[in-house]
Amino acid sequence: MEQQVYINPEIAEWSKLCKRPAFDYSTLNEIVQPILLDVKENGDAAVRKYAEQFDHVKLDNLWVTKDEMVAAALTVPEELKAAIQVAVDNISRFHLSQVEQPQVIETATGVYCWRKSVGIQNVGLYIPGGTAPLFSTLLMLAIPAKIAGCKNIIVSTPTNSKGEVNPIVLYAARLLGLTKIYKAGGVQAIAAMAFGTETMTQAYKIFGPGNQYVTAAKQLVNSMGTAIDMPAGPSELAVYADETSNPAFIASDLLSQAEHGADSQVVLLASSASLVSAVQGEIDQQLQSLPRASIASQALKNSRFIVMDEPANAFAFLNVYAPEHLIIASDHATDLAEKVLNAGSVFLGNYSPESAGDYASGTNHTLPTNGYAKAYSGVSVDSFVKKITFQQLSPEGIKLIGPAIEAMAEAEGLQAHKNAVSIRLSSLKKITSTEEQKIDSNNG
Amino acid sequence: MEQQVYINPEIAEWSKLCKRPAFDYSTLNEIVQPILLDVKENGDAAVRKYAEQFDHVKLDNLWVTKDEMVAAALTVPEELKAAIQVAVDNISRFHLSQVEQPQVIETATGVYCWRKSVGIQNVGLYIPGGTAPLFSTLLMLAIPAKIAGCKNIIVSTPTNSKGEVNPIVLYAARLLGLTKIYKAGGVQAIAAMAFGTETMTQAYKIFGPGNQYVTAAKQLVNSMGTAIDMPAGPSELAVYADETSNPAFIASDLLSQAEHGADSQVVLLASSASLVSAVQGEIDQQLQSLPRASIASQALKNSRFIVMDEPANAFAFLNVYAPEHLIIASDHATDLAEKVLNAGSVFLGNYSPESAGDYASGTNHTLPTNGYAKAYSGVSVDSFVKKITFQQLSPEGIKLIGPAIEAMAEAEGLQAHKNAVSIRLSSLKKITSTEEQKIDSNNG
Repeated sequence: MEQQVYINPEIAEWSKLCKRPAFDYSTLNEIVQPILLDVKENGDAAVRKYAEQFDHVKLDNLWVTKDEMVAAALTVPEELKAAIQVAVDNISRFHLSQVEQPQVIETATGVYCWRKSVGIQNVGLYIPGGTAPLFSTLLMLAIPAKIAGCKNIIVSTPTNSKGEVNPIVLYAARLLGLTKIYKAGGVQAIAAMAFGTETMTQAYKIFGPGNQYVTAAKQLVNSMGTAIDMPAGPSELAVYADETSNPAFIASDLLSQAEHGADSQVVLLASSASLVSAVQGEIDQQLQSLPRASIASQALKNSRFIVMDEPANAFAFLNVYAPEHLIIASDHATDLAEKVLNAGSVFLGNYSPESAGDYASGTNHTLPTNGYAKAYSGVSVDSFVKKITFQQLSPEGIKLIGPAIEAMAEAEGLQAHKNAVSIRLSSLKKITSTEEQKIDSNNG
Repeated sequence: MEQQVYINPEIAEWSKLCKRPAFDYSTLNEIVQPILLDVKENGDAAVRKYAEQFDHVKLDNLWVTKDEMVAAALTVPEELKAAIQVAVDNISRFHLSQVEQPQVIETATGVYCWRKSVGIQNVGLYIPGGTAPLFSTLLMLAIPAKIAGCKNIIVSTPTNSKGEVNPIVLYAARLLGLTKIYKAGGVQAIAAMAFGTETMTQAYKIFGPGNQYVTAAKQLVNSMGTAIDMPAGPSELAVYADETSNPAFIASDLLSQAEHGADSQVVLLASSASLVSAVQGEIDQQLQSLPRASIASQALKNSRFIVMDEPANAFAFLNVYAPEHLIIASDHATDLAEKVLNAGSVFLGNYSPESAGDYASGTNHTLPTNGYAKAYSGVSVDSFVKKITFQQLSPEGIKLIGPAIEAMAEAEGLQAHKNAVSIRLSSLKKITSTEEQKIDSNNG
């Protein structure tokens, strides 16, 4: 592979090197918007129409039946079932640790404040079809949704031309206790979840990856009021490598990212030019045996091979890049990880490939791309709950902080805000003085 | 006050009753977009131009100087300073409790996963000017930003016609250790923060309320890649009241919400028609002495007075409405609070007015409106951090879960993902067999 190598690039060059092969999804709005509105107006009938038009499939029933679920499970090999169980166990363990119990804080005497996490009642999970059936994405979305306590978890996924959903997706859904699987893909699926149909409960939040049309549809319904998991972009991986790393391992990681799609991006930050050469040599060799070699080769054209003598500079660059995935392929990974400020998910050491997090280590694989890691987190149980704040003031509490509230409300020119406190304080004064009178008359 | 009262409305009516006086901010895009692009292109010069055009103020220096900060503090009355200190203490205590320490989970033997909260490096806080100087909003945004560890906290707020920022806002900023106060309001302020200028560091996330133009600008920069706190809408309050509540207190709470703006909405869910009458009587009386009575009266036209005999129905309705603020004005508030699924912030009992949470109890007052509480949380320390996931697998760990990853990657048709594991497993096998050979030869 002949690819330009950047040696200790100047800071002024960094933003150019951090550019993603990005796509402006709003250019698709003219195509997407009418489909959204059609489904909003005409519900399942419109979904059926677009399934026929785009996917060449005639669907009578848009919902997967119990029989289909049972039949699908029979076709999944036992070895794969065991593998999925490993993933479910680990993902469940990690996401269970994200559950927050309410913690009551007495911020001042008699003033109690707390937050309670409540699952978003209706959520929609979009699982793409196409060349690779992403049952792993179903695990990554449905497990935290179940743990969060979401009541209606609806999955939407396209069928093949016979109207069948991928059996592994159905097996995974059944394993997790999901029963509502809607046979729709593309823009019409996003529309059905966002607006509801005669058979579909409206989702308050929609999750999941998809092609450019799905992404554009998610952005549009988001602007119309439905929450979405995060803004999307092509997947990406950055690897930091030094003299303690293994070039063959690094090449395999870069290729695993590159095979996702021609628009994927891989970035290597290496401590020496010879290490870059070694990795490039390994890529050339490993690429030969890959079934998706042509996709990977195209993605490698978007790649960046950068030598940084100083680890501090390498991590400064990585924090500007803000990678979705970051592998720190070094025996010093634990120390170097302290330098990470912007990344979606970080993999430490030489035995932590991105694949582990993609499938089975327990972390979530739905992560911020395109530099969004500067402000966004990956999907977690947090993504499926609202944290509602509660507060309760005792009479003692309002007496204590009431005067401060009155002073501040007055200074902001909000007299009625002040009154809401004053009326309570004077009522409490009356109670107190009545009690005092009683005590006086008892003593008298 | 003569206002229609709904008695036990049918479920079919609920969605109509839950309608907000909503505004479609995207109708302003044609006005807002060119200003955004002008500031993106021309930086501070464009900001100065719009300050002159819209706010009739000529600004040489767009940044508040240290002298201005010091001078402002001298004009703030001591009583107000003490009140602000009470608020700062309570808000700090509650938000400090939201800080999460990393918790390492061994999801399988040798597989370690954890999350680390890292403050978003650059954040922009918009503080509106206008009739009421919202220094309380500065506290609600800056305190969690400081606690989250955000490095660059930039405040943008408009000046008066003399080019001066409200002194209480400056006092609060100085108290919290903020030094970067940019003299800009409106669309140009949002643009400067979103894109950066020659003197302004680009913000990765923008927070804060504003008028319709500010809201439209935030939505637009969000679609262009800058994160925002949440979608905005007019403020709103729902009160649940029963025979244990105090009609005068409830009236004061409804009025405190109504004075925010003519588009505010207040909703009363009462257990009896006589309670509604009593509250309406109190409103009429308290309204007379309010300086913002005309605004409040207009807002009351959007109000809903509803009688629900059954508390279960009242809370079912409230969960459909999903209020920004919910007061449960009842001695049974603790039990009733268990029924809340959708709300921004909940106030329990007769001595917990919304004003308490607006200013000084400790909870945040930046909350989801317009039904967004179904999917969104209010601002908290969470809003100012990204939670980055980390993972480290030991050789033992990858040996244990590697085969599951291989099986799943293969089933998804992603061979390179599988290879990244296989290459590590076979390397570990070689190491093991070399070690075995050594042991054999030692024994031999």
